[in-house]
Amino acid sequence: MRDVVVTGIGSTRFGKLEGRPVQSMAVAAANAAIIRSGVERRDVGAVYLGNFAAGPLCGQEVLAGMVADEVGLSGVPCTKVEGACASGGIAFRHAVLAVASGQCNAALVVGTEKMTHARGSDVTAALNNAMDNRSDGPSGLTFPGFFGLAWRIHAEKYGTTRDEVSAVVIKNKSNGLKNPLAQMGADLTPEIIAQSQPIADPLQLYDCCPVSDGAAALVVVAAEYAGAAPDLPIRVRAAVQTSGAARLAGHESLCTFETTRLAAEQAYDAAGIAPSDLDLAEIHDCFSMAEIVHSEDLQLVPRGQGAKWAAEGRTKVGGDIAINASGGLLSKGHPVGATGVGQLYEVIMQLRGEHPNQVAGARLGLAQNVGGAGVACTVSILERSDA
Amino acid sequence: MRDVVVTGIGSTRFGKLEGRPVQSMAVAAANAAIIRSGVERRDVGAVYLGNFAAGPLCGQEVLAGMVADEVGLSGVPCTKVEGACASGGIAFRHAVLAVASGQCNAALVVGTEKMTHARGSDVTAALNNAMDNRSDGPSGLTFPGFFGLAWRIHAEKYGTTRDEVSAVVIKNKSNGLKNPLAQMGADLTPEIIAQSQPIADPLQLYDCCPVSDGAAALVVVAAEYAGAAPDLPIRVRAAVQTSGAARLAGHESLCTFETTRLAAEQAYDAAGIAPSDLDLAEIHDCFSMAEIVHSEDLQLVPRGQGAKWAAEGRTKVGGDIAINASGGLLSKGHPVGATGVGQLYEVIMQLRGEHPNQVAGARLGLAQNVGGAGVACTVSILERSDA
Repeated sequence: MRDVVVTGIGSTRFGKLEGRPVQSMAVAAANAAIIRSGVERRDVGAVYLGNFAAGPLCGQEVLAGMVADEVGLSGVPCTKVEGACASGGIAFRHAVLAVASGQCNAALVVGTEKMTHARGSDVTAALNNAMDNRSDGPSGLTFPGFFGLAWRIHAEKYGTTRDEVSAVVIKNKSNGLKNPLAQMGADLTPEIIAQSQPIADPLQLYDCCPVSDGAAALVVVAAEYAGAAPDLPIRVRAAVQTSGAARLAGHESLCTFETTRLAAEQAYDAAGIAPSDLDLAEIHDCFSMAEIVHSEDLQLVPRGQGAKWAAEGRTKVGGDIAINASGGLLSKGHPVGATGVGQLYEVIMQLRGEHPNQVAGARLGLAQNVGGAGVACTVSILERSDA
Repeated sequence: MRDVVVTGIGSTRFGKLEGRPVQSMAVAAANAAIIRSGVERRDVGAVYLGNFAAGPLCGQEVLAGMVADEVGLSGVPCTKVEGACASGGIAFRHAVLAVASGQCNAALVVGTEKMTHARGSDVTAALNNAMDNRSDGPSGLTFPGFFGLAWRIHAEKYGTTRDEVSAVVIKNKSNGLKNPLAQMGADLTPEIIAQSQPIADPLQLYDCCPVSDGAAALVVVAAEYAGAAPDLPIRVRAAVQTSGAARLAGHESLCTFETTRLAAEQAYDAAGIAPSDLDLAEIHDCFSMAEIVHSEDLQLVPRGQGAKWAAEGRTKVGGDIAINASGGLLSKGHPVGATGVGQLYEVIMQLRGEHPNQVAGARLGLAQNVGGAGVACTVSILERSDA
């Protein structure tokens, strides 16, 4: 397997992007990434596009081929991949494999999703397609419900409090204020959060990511072909993908995702690093409690301490490890199929030293993207390798 | 890249399978394939699942991880791929690449679709998601309309007649009578076909494939690990994937699919064979006219002669080349995401010499799977290699 780097990157803003169809957001991000990639379009030999809900919400499938055709890549193998909210991370891994294994010298990764035009009940129905609907559908369980249950268990086991969880929200909403791509940002207090609308007790409004539109794209290139890239190429040290049960009953505990634990182990092993070597991580905080659980499963914080570390400021920019300096899903937004690619975009900006909420001296970053209730997970580790 | 073979295969019947959910059909086919694969479940290192419409029609996504979990493969990377009707062929190609490039020694391929439970208008809407709906949606174009237009051009250019096209239908419906997995079969005459209901002039009812449920699965194994397989392993000589425009205006002519022509050239080149070396082909006859156009693009028959060769009996079992000995989509059925995997199942049965409509002495077979109006195409070439 060859060394692989990311050169060109592109992204729309995440948010309510009225009048922008799912495919044209993807085309905009893809063109931006290709233009800055340092490779010619004829050298791009594969396209992987992550999308989750354009079938039910936009009446549009076959997006991989459509987007490729529109950006001048017609002919090359174009594959849409779907693993719910992990679709973008899965697309990235496949592009890395295509280049690393020598199938092609460059590959385009795109993630895209359009959601804000749809009725709330249609969005909820589409998101619930990421559950095992024969097993868990009849219970009425939704994703906020899942993380509400996880919170109750976490609180009972580790004594986690509302104010500690609010520290995650305050951090990510504050980070979002600094990110021009973010859907929202806010300067919050524990009081404001505690007074917000209940969603799935104990989860409240500010604990939940918004519904979003957006697209992001990356060009993955074999290291030896990256010489013409105008921006600093960032090396891919690991791109791991795992799977697990979609059913609630397939989980030993709601406070841990076996898929993430496995992916993290494999990624650290592949990269030859320890979790403590990381400078920053973009992790899948679809809910405040998700960041807490995932940061523990990724071994970035000690088991049970996810919320406490946030409350102590250890996961903010300048702390032990910067978690979701972008604002995360809570603040940057969660256009499902685009999210995983957007996370990598943020990590790359950090490792280039060009992020608007920069982690000083960042050299090693991680992105974790989770699908459904742990049915899929990707963990990618990237490195600034100009040293 | 390593030599790759297919060992275990499994399939449900295609047809109206009442009470069988999309995931349980897939689980049945996958278990059957794994049991006959000669490899242990722990050696299966990747899962690729082709599906197109389970989101809108079944309210269920994340099928790759769900099916893997149910067949005891939890943990491994599981990817759902979507390229409309080519989803199954795309899944196969990715499994072949995973094994050939050494990512794993065995990979599971599954295709599944559930359609017959849905209302006709919902099925039509879901199928139309395979078009470029911003470009072609407002015209009211559907896939029968597309191939109706193609027919008119073919007739004008090459003098193709209703009776010649009917020869394709008669052949495939007759082949279907011999295939226990087929949704239907019939002993037709040109008169019966000519009297059937008009669908999209000049296409009539018998020119169109049925709406179907079904699933199929294969296990792809590195040749050196196939020693324990109970059935004859079949070698993969080529697994090619291409893309093209989804928009009607992206086609130079409706009588030829650039995606297929390109995929065929690449596949013959990769396999080092000429089209005339093939004993049989399963090709994507969603409509009678589709078989005609594709058989020409695949260079199996001379340009413009697709219907005439059928009328002369040159594409039946025992003719110059057996096209759709399984009955094809017209007769075996078209559960969209399963179709491409089902085609490979049929080719493998032929190459093993175990097909119920056997092509005598078959050694080289091709499967062609097309998505939308040519937005994606896969061409795979398989060989009996015990000589």
